[in-house]
Amino acid sequence: MAGSSFGRIFRITTWGESHGPALGCVIDGCPAGVELSEKDIQPYLDRRKPGNAAVATARKESDTAEILSGVFEGKTTGTPISVIIRNSDQHSNDYDNLKDLYRPGHADMTYDAKYGFRDHRGGGRSSGRETAARVIAGAIAVKVLKELGITVEAYTRAIGPVEADLSEYSRSAVLANATAMPDINANARALEYIADMKNKCDSCGGVMECIIKGVPAGVGDPVFDKLDALLAQAVMSIGAVKAVEIGDGIQAASSVGSRNNDQFKAGSKGQISKKSNHAGGILGGISDSSDIIVRASVKPTPSIARSQKTVNKLGENTEIEIHGRHDPVIVPRAVVVLESMCAVTILDSLLYGMGSRIDNLVSIYNK
Amino acid sequence: MAGSSFGRIFRITTWGESHGPALGCVIDGCPAGVELSEKDIQPYLDRRKPGNAAVATARKESDTAEILSGVFEGKTTGTPISVIIRNSDQHSNDYDNLKDLYRPGHADMTYDAKYGFRDHRGGGRSSGRETAARVIAGAIAVKVLKELGITVEAYTRAIGPVEADLSEYSRSAVLANATAMPDINANARALEYIADMKNKCDSCGGVMECIIKGVPAGVGDPVFDKLDALLAQAVMSIGAVKAVEIGDGIQAASSVGSRNNDQFKAGSKGQISKKSNHAGGILGGISDSSDIIVRASVKPTPSIARSQKTVNKLGENTEIEIHGRHDPVIVPRAVVVLESMCAVTILDSLLYGMGSRIDNLVSIYNK
Amino acid sequence: MAGSSFGRIFRITTWGESHGPALGCVIDGCPAGVELSEKDIQPYLDRRKPGNAAVATARKESDTAEILSGVFEGKTTGTPISVIIRNSDQHSNDYDNLKDLYRPGHADMTYDAKYGFRDHRGGGRSSGRETAARVIAGAIAVKVLKELGITVEAYTRAIGPVEADLSEYSRSAVLANATAMPDINANARALEYIADMKNKCDSCGGVMECIIKGVPAGVGDPVFDKLDALLAQAVMSIGAVKAVEIGDGIQAASSVGSRNNDQFKAGSKGQISKKSNHAGGILGGISDSSDIIVRASVKPTPSIARSQKTVNKLGENTEIEIHGRHDPVIVPRAVVVLESMCAVTILDSLLYGMGSRIDNLVSIYNK
Amino acid sequence: MAGSSFGRIFRITTWGESHGPALGCVIDGCPAGVELSEKDIQPYLDRRKPGNAAVATARKESDTAEILSGVFEGKTTGTPISVIIRNSDQHSNDYDNLKDLYRPGHADMTYDAKYGFRDHRGGGRSSGRETAARVIAGAIAVKVLKELGITVEAYTRAIGPVEADLSEYSRSAVLANATAMPDINANARALEYIADMKNKCDSCGGVMECIIKGVPAGVGDPVFDKLDALLAQAVMSIGAVKAVEIGDGIQAASSVGSRNNDQFKAGSKGQISKKSNHAGGILGGISDSSDIIVRASVKPTPSIARSQKTVNKLGENTEIEIHGRHDPVIVPRAVVVLESMCAVTILDSLLYGMGSRIDNLVSIYNK
Repeated sequence: MAGSSFGRIFRITTWGESHGPALGCVIDGCPAGVELSEKDIQPYLDRRKPGNAAVATARKESDTAEILSGVFEGKTTGTPISVIIRNSDQHSNDYDNLKDLYRPGHADMTYDAKYGFRDHRGGGRSSGRETAARVIAGAIAVKVLKELGITVEAYTRAIGPVEADLSEYSRSAVLANATAMPDINANARALEYIADMKNKCDSCGGVMECIIKGVPAGVGDPVFDKLDALLAQAVMSIGAVKAVEIGDGIQAASSVGSRNNDQFKAGSKGQISKKSNHAGGILGGISDSSDIIVRASVKPTPSIARSQKTVNKLGENTEIEIHGRHDPVIVPRAVVVLESMCAVTILDSLLYGMGSRIDNLVSIYNK
Repeated sequence: MAGSSFGRIFRITTWGESHGPALGCVIDGCPAGVELSEKDIQPYLDRRKPGNAAVATARKESDTAEILSGVFEGKTTGTPISVIIRNSDQHSNDYDNLKDLYRPGHADMTYDAKYGFRDHRGGGRSSGRETAARVIAGAIAVKVLKELGITVEAYTRAIGPVEADLSEYSRSAVLANATAMPDINANARALEYIADMKNKCDSCGGVMECIIKGVPAGVGDPVFDKLDALLAQAVMSIGAVKAVEIGDGIQAASSVGSRNNDQFKAGSKGQISKKSNHAGGILGGISDSSDIIVRASVKPTPSIARSQKTVNKLGENTEIEIHGRHDPVIVPRAVVVLESMCAVTILDSLLYGMGSRIDNLVSIYNK
Repeated sequence: MAGSSFGRIFRITTWGESHGPALGCVIDGCPAGVELSEKDIQPYLDRRKPGNAAVATARKESDTAEILSGVFEGKTTGTPISVIIRNSDQHSNDYDNLKDLYRPGHADMTYDAKYGFRDHRGGGRSSGRETAARVIAGAIAVKVLKELGITVEAYTRAIGPVEADLSEYSRSAVLANATAMPDINANARALEYIADMKNKCDSCGGVMECIIKGVPAGVGDPVFDKLDALLAQAVMSIGAVKAVEIGDGIQAASSVGSRNNDQFKAGSKGQISKKSNHAGGILGGISDSSDIIVRASVKPTPSIARSQKTVNKLGENTEIEIHGRHDPVIVPRAVVVLESMCAVTILDSLLYGMGSRIDNLVSIYNK
Repeated sequence: MAGSSFGRIFRITTWGESHGPALGCVIDGCPAGVELSEKDIQPYLDRRKPGNAAVATARKESDTAEILSGVFEGKTTGTPISVIIRNSDQHSNDYDNLKDLYRPGHADMTYDAKYGFRDHRGGGRSSGRETAARVIAGAIAVKVLKELGITVEAYTRAIGPVEADLSEYSRSAVLANATAMPDINANARALEYIADMKNKCDSCGGVMECIIKGVPAGVGDPVFDKLDALLAQAVMSIGAVKAVEIGDGIQAASSVGSRNNDQFKAGSKGQISKKSNHAGGILGGISDSSDIIVRASVKPTPSIARSQKTVNKLGENTEIEIHGRHDPVIVPRAVVVLESMCAVTILDSLLYGMGSRIDNLVSIYNK
């Protein structure tokens, strides 16, 4: 039941099936007075689109966003922003032969178990297409955060065994490379690896990472709503993500305290920084003003053209081959989704904690 | 602000500081009619207690739970269950010299940034002691789940470089071993490693894992409230956890689709199972009836007796040495916290989705 | 911030401004398997439409609902149902002269105070037009409740000084009468009164009531989420409602215990009923199986053609006359909104409490 | 299930049964830095206590509050404030003869219907005693609001047929009079009426009202979280309340627009006020800077010593006489509960909307 909303103040609700007439997002709780138009959203949707035949499905969606509410005379009004995308390129019939079969690695079986039946066309609600709606919200959150001096940038860190060289990081490379990797060499090798997978009727996964800069110390809440805990929910909720790491992540488990601790140092004006950032910008669930680092491991695309054993709706053993339009790897397109979910989470936590000190409250309300 | 509650129907709220008079948990939304007494809770609290000098602090807390509400004539009434633990062994003065210093790897600096000041005694609210309150809720959730045929078992998988041999898994070993590892050999080697760390005035981390058996297919919600997403929030909210993995976790990123997909097979009575469980029991955010597998990477204890560079409240550079009672590794005591958070999350998702099909609703309400 | 969502499991989110391109509702958490099409929704929207020139604005909205998601092959899938209404008859220019003036009794001033500016066209988000989106959700909730044997019926009880004679209650009269009153005589007198108001460039208010039948005993939660408390929120959230009563409501304050208490009686099969229903079907926040009775007092329409003193955006004293299309009374059109909010609240509470007893849980999950 | 929490940022959770060992409240999300001790809470608890034999039960509870967390060195830390009251004067045996009987007007029957059984001692969780926990939260909210220049004052407006003369309003009279009425004459007449009821083994109800001064314009959220809607939930959730009114309330239904509209006027410094306050300080769900007025109608105490028809747990017809310690009217003791719920609601809405404008956000975060 429910489950399609995220956030406590900056609250987003997505809706829509892969092959329904449309999908969209309602963003409630966006501050008023932010300049916003479809032009702010489109570049983010474009990054999610299957642009490069080498790495992505041939499905052609124009993915044109239309803002239906919450913006007046070019500015957000503080009321719900409803944005809709009409689906255009629906090859629903491609899925007719899969109607009664449970695709391994997909949610077909579990949706039937939960709801009794499902919209089988392209995965319905469980399709990666749902994330287009998240990207809409992300584009808006990124815009608000930018006004506060906060930037959110994600990229591909690895595709299968090919790892990016982060010392060569370039934002323009991330945006230009078909793999969304930040260096050109790794991008080239990854493309080869992907091509090889495709030839073998197989698929691969990878790792993506997001760096959030400029978050002041003090954002996030203790205990269950820790900033890293909410980021973990946000990022794990992206389909195909199987692991979420903060800072050094799993490497921290084999480190030692003297190395893993980030020692503090004072700047000339008394500001506090850290000599290292193993923690990934969060201590005790609250931002410490250094870069926030979030990493996600993505499983290989489950749709492959090889024959696989499965079961049909009647509970009979059978086999399945999945043809049609499928990405051999989804990481390059998922990078902007990671960026979006991180932006939404950071903005929501920032808004949520604004009244955490009575002295600040008094200075705001008694002026 | 806020942040101390978790769950939508089975909703827990923890409170209390490390060196305050008491700490506790309010569990709202527990089904009525469950037999419950302090005897059900105590064994879980005892597992969290520092029992073994080799691996844990010498702090002696009796950690005796007292149920103050929600139970009548030995059964839960459906109303909030309030459970309290009085703190007994408070060496608050141990912390006086740390009062104005920011301990590296701790939340001292971020709490001050957020709230303007903090209860510095033993970390106050950010102390690992808060998790005693979670364990109370976990013990209750485990008891309810058991009535539904669901078991939740966590254990230590690795301490620093020492990995457990899971082929030797034994629940009694987990409960008996000081490291909460499931095999005796690894336990012995891990204890040596921990002793070595202690001698070096250093600390170490590790990996813990939880297996949930018996969850029927269909538990969990799509999109943001996916079962794995909520587990990720629940587990990342445990202090010192830096990574959460489901099933194969980060290994999935370097696998290929043909290997990572779990193929389905039908049983003789039409029931559906999987030939493997790389997914860790969750597909599309919904349980698939196989074991749910959750793994957490824990950073080394930040409190170490070595000298570290830091900053004081006035923003001046200084050094710090942390003496007193500290675990050289927290994993063995955190295992029951992992188990608790998983149990709470599973029960909440199960209760939340009960009305997901109209045919079930009709059969329940129109009988 | 936020505020446009209601419900915990059956959760609705409305969006859209009076004179924007469209408005709509996302209904998340609707049980799967319910037959649903636009035909189920349209009659409810039609009841909210200004149909009768005597009582309503001359604005002509076709108010055609389009379902964009959550329904497949004629049945709800359990995923978010997104329904949209395109706005067609927008006389935005009617409002240009009101742009910088604060209409008395409207939210113009308070929206500016909160958000810094506002969509002034027809009240923007604060317009009664927002309730069209609620009616969509209500139509769906009513349909689900009907399958469970629960009916929800609202009607006009009074218009200004004219009170309906409930002993003559007829559902068809409610649906046929321009005032939504249940008896013909009162309807005629109320229409005269409304015409008189209109001639005087004035407006009037009234009282509406909703009766919910068939709710089994045991629906609702203790303390803050009492069924009557949630109904109070739901109904008070309808613009222009200034009072909410349950059962005898304000009359209870001047009654005495021996008269106000509803004594119990047993049926031949052991079922329990009450000899009276002063309580309005709810005891301690939980349904008692008798009719649930909710009453709302509605203020006179604030838009009147008379001259009124007011202030402009610059803080200068001035006068205002509001011409254009305005209902002299909104009660007849608000009745279906009351019905909708009651249906949504009852369904949400029913779903929320399904797991309140362990014996029921065991029988459902261990079968 | 659940239901014992209220608020989104300033979030309170109450627990405890009438005759259990203790009851309490956890207040999460209180701003840090507020001076707080038990001395701030006790006067509010004392106002709720049965002080005057004429109007209240003879139960003697010392109702001593103990703060267990969230306060350090005399100031709130921003973490959960847990406050507990030990129950002392439990005459549980008084209730043994009512164990299997359903008291008319009480929640006995509905709790059994929902949960299968109940703590029958003194109403258990459904007892008015639960409101002592709300008063704790209210005392804290009032203290925070006072720092922001906001005051919250409630009083008795009517007892049965006796109405207070508000032109004689005196806060000290409210606090001194046994009825919590603001004028001495009405207090005297009300006491006579109550004595008469007691002699007749009957009980009575009344009306209470709360005035909140100093709330700046702009507090509250549109649509479902309107300030008046949340106040309605908060106030209707107080046991025995059967109606909630804002401003003119039910009188608005029989008024006309030209009279009911509050016309605006500008002050010399451009500040906007209203020439009247029929709206009760809220327009479109958002505060307009005039006094917020909330009124609640309270039913007669259901416990009366007269014989009433009822049913027992076996579903058999029988009779019941309720002896023991019962208030002939609960209004005087409920006034501080009304005040508390209003204070909590206002503070929560104020904190929730702090980030509603980007210009404010930028000035706070980019300084």
